[in-house]
Amino acid sequence: MPNPNSATGSDPAVRSYIADRRDEFIAELSEWLRIPSISADPAHSHDVSRSADWLAQRLLRAGFPSVEIWSTEGLPTVFAQWPSDDPLAPTVVLYGHHDVQPVDPVELWDTAPFEPLIRETEHGQQLVGRGSIDDKGQVFFHLLGLAAHMETTGRSTPAVNLKVLIEGEEESGSVHFAQLLRENRENLQCDVVVVSDTGVFRRDTISVCVGMRGLIEAQLDVVGPTGDLHSGSFGGSVPNPATVLGRIIARLHDSDGRVTLPGYYDNVIPLSDRERELLARLPFDEDRWLEAAQSTATQGESGFTTLERVWARPTAEVNGIWGGYMGPGGKTIIPSAAHAKLSFRLAAGQQPADVPPALDAWLSDLTDDGTIPAGITVTPHFERQGVRPCLTPLDHPALESVTRAMGRAFETEILYTREGGSGPEADLAEILEAPVVFLGVGLPDDRTHAPNEKADIDFLLRGAEAAAYLWADLAANWSPGSADA
Amino acid sequence: MPNPNSATGSDPAVRSYIADRRDEFIAELSEWLRIPSISADPAHSHDVSRSADWLAQRLLRAGFPSVEIWSTEGLPTVFAQWPSDDPLAPTVVLYGHHDVQPVDPVELWDTAPFEPLIRETEHGQQLVGRGSIDDKGQVFFHLLGLAAHMETTGRSTPAVNLKVLIEGEEESGSVHFAQLLRENRENLQCDVVVVSDTGVFRRDTISVCVGMRGLIEAQLDVVGPTGDLHSGSFGGSVPNPATVLGRIIARLHDSDGRVTLPGYYDNVIPLSDRERELLARLPFDEDRWLEAAQSTATQGESGFTTLERVWARPTAEVNGIWGGYMGPGGKTIIPSAAHAKLSFRLAAGQQPADVPPALDAWLSDLTDDGTIPAGITVTPHFERQGVRPCLTPLDHPALESVTRAMGRAFETEILYTREGGSGPEADLAEILEAPVVFLGVGLPDDRTHAPNEKADIDFLLRGAEAAAYLWADLAANWSPGSADA
Repeated sequence: MPNPNSATGSDPAVRSYIADRRDEFIAELSEWLRIPSISADPAHSHDVSRSADWLAQRLLRAGFPSVEIWSTEGLPTVFAQWPSDDPLAPTVVLYGHHDVQPVDPVELWDTAPFEPLIRETEHGQQLVGRGSIDDKGQVFFHLLGLAAHMETTGRSTPAVNLKVLIEGEEESGSVHFAQLLRENRENLQCDVVVVSDTGVFRRDTISVCVGMRGLIEAQLDVVGPTGDLHSGSFGGSVPNPATVLGRIIARLHDSDGRVTLPGYYDNVIPLSDRERELLARLPFDEDRWLEAAQSTATQGESGFTTLERVWARPTAEVNGIWGGYMGPGGKTIIPSAAHAKLSFRLAAGQQPADVPPALDAWLSDLTDDGTIPAGITVTPHFERQGVRPCLTPLDHPALESVTRAMGRAFETEILYTREGGSGPEADLAEILEAPVVFLGVGLPDDRTHAPNEKADIDFLLRGAEAAAYLWADLAANWSPGSADA
Repeated sequence: MPNPNSATGSDPAVRSYIADRRDEFIAELSEWLRIPSISADPAHSHDVSRSADWLAQRLLRAGFPSVEIWSTEGLPTVFAQWPSDDPLAPTVVLYGHHDVQPVDPVELWDTAPFEPLIRETEHGQQLVGRGSIDDKGQVFFHLLGLAAHMETTGRSTPAVNLKVLIEGEEESGSVHFAQLLRENRENLQCDVVVVSDTGVFRRDTISVCVGMRGLIEAQLDVVGPTGDLHSGSFGGSVPNPATVLGRIIARLHDSDGRVTLPGYYDNVIPLSDRERELLARLPFDEDRWLEAAQSTATQGESGFTTLERVWARPTAEVNGIWGGYMGPGGKTIIPSAAHAKLSFRLAAGQQPADVPPALDAWLSDLTDDGTIPAGITVTPHFERQGVRPCLTPLDHPALESVTRAMGRAFETEILYTREGGSGPEADLAEILEAPVVFLGVGLPDDRTHAPNEKADIDFLLRGAEAAAYLWADLAANWSPGSADA
């Protein structure tokens, strides 16, 4: 088995093919980014459909002999196939998503979120706009990479049987995705899943992701008086839902920064010594990381480094709170209700389905100890089923192919990371019974999910180059059945 | 000195004069209520001016020889004078306000807040609409009471020198009121201040208010990352402002329900044994009170009854919280900031000016003990200077006149209460150097400051009757200079 980090270098033909198409790439991607395909907001359902249509048309133009739009109960997924003429070719499912995050708070954007534009920076050109890196930019570089692969290898079909699966609900929890995978299991039969929705460690430290955290989200509704009360007439004598919500949130972590839901850590796969050693090899610069985090200090679970906390440890975060009077001036009320949106990031080993009963038990404990007093009811809502965490074994041959492809494109040694974020990767692995590997070129300062999201154009083009190498490498080195995920 | 509770009974002439004008009273008051004079919302400034104009016109029509609109830096106050032809008559400032509370959450109103209507109930007719009881209804009954007084006594001027002072910023903290009082001290010279902005204990237990709590409001801005962060990429490793806000709120009270600001209770005048005994004479029915509180349980400072908590003890309440994502679906972010609106009700003896430094010291303590971690800044804002608490001595002769007037109007023994709410009464007492007494007919279920505010028409008319008696009683029994507040 070749050392994945002793790959041959860049192929000038691939690189120049891609470089020659830079302007066209930017123009076409920008056209796609102008479609505000926000899947979490029902008001944008039609835009998600338009985004799917746009991609389907573009895949047809790229030469895919079969392009379908799968309209689930939710928002549409695009599926396209291009079989290889090599009967021994492995089959790859390429996964990405065409929906994007909401844009609130929109007033913090320097530009209109859906009017992408090029910004010249010390690192070269950046494309600013919602979806530029998460995930339209990373889906779109594959079209350029595939064209480069076929042109430079003189092939009329890809070296692998390519199945492109671009989801429309990733940013709203992939609610219907598992069902869609199950219903289309035959269509999606494959030897490996390639996911392009992640990033590299740093601009100068290129890496491949081997795992992601899972996710489950909850809303807590804390309800007290039937209506808002005059805080003069009633203040000091009935429980205040906003105050109780504060006390509930304060109890979510203990003094070691650990989440207090009962049994929350029971099934977390602990970091092995080797993993901790590999993580420690990454040149982690806390000051630069804090800059990307737009923060001035770290805080988290005792006994773990920042990277370990973000990649390998579970969390509970408050995503939003509201209740009572939020307008100008003041209104001296006891609000009738207060609310919080919570998200739980899950580490490998945890199951989203274990969180709702744990939260119920936790709230029951808070009721027993008086944190939630008589007169206040707290109701948790889980609108979505959650996303499982996933982890790829470091010695998997498909991961070695990705490592070589990335090494050639970026002409550097490739290290390994995880991602703190969450995607439907665990469903892909479990339902399609195939290993999952990650080919992603996001940067830590890309501001995914935040105002002013951007992508570095050069990184998107290196992504295209890596994709071009990957199909040839997988075809040459992959023996389906030789390894299992 | 006559026993204030051995007053003569109702005067049939006064009562029938008022009863004959019931429909006209409702129609005119409804016209005033249709003007949405919300002083806290700058979008309604013009409406507050319209409300002042309406009242000024109505006072002129009532016969006041002098009516002025005082436009301060803020919103207009109406001032009208009607001197008595009796050279020995005492001078009264009658205080009320013509601005109203905001109407949020407007969706909880059963009717349009500014389209008043009559509701028939087991207790007779109720007028539903913002301002019906707080405070337009209680200002307006004085016009009817004054007419009844003059008609039934055959006077062409009131028995007292009457100075009507109706503020336009009471519901937004009376920001300019103290300054206005100081600038117009000569105009406002008086022997007693009568405030009509309070209520009785219960429908079947008529009482006079002898004190109100003070108030100061703060906003806390809790700021962390410069922008919202992806909770996958950064969750678990930087402090979350919404979580920190929860912890701050949780620390606002100790386990005995006492506010934890340093020195907060130092100057509170403790309840005397006599006051506790008088309060205990009120037929307090906690179940009925909870019904008015739209709550299912009480909670507050240990060692005090519900009435003591509401009337004589200071509080800290959270009036509103917000931050991060509050929309449909979810958004997995660490919010860049979270906010809370707090109000502190102050008991007799406390000064609003003592609260800001105490809050600063408290936040400093929370920083020292790690509740507010590095990476989070918390800034308190006090937009308004606050309102002082006030307390009228139980044996004051002006209070005895009010007690007799209320006793005649309601034909029952009058008890004494305080109000948990806050008004500019302390400024009136201090700046005008005059005692303050309260003539108010609000009911505990009037839903002041809340959706579906209402006034019982019969109570408003009893208020008019009490006002008619009060002017004659004060003129007959009051010897200015014989007692000090």
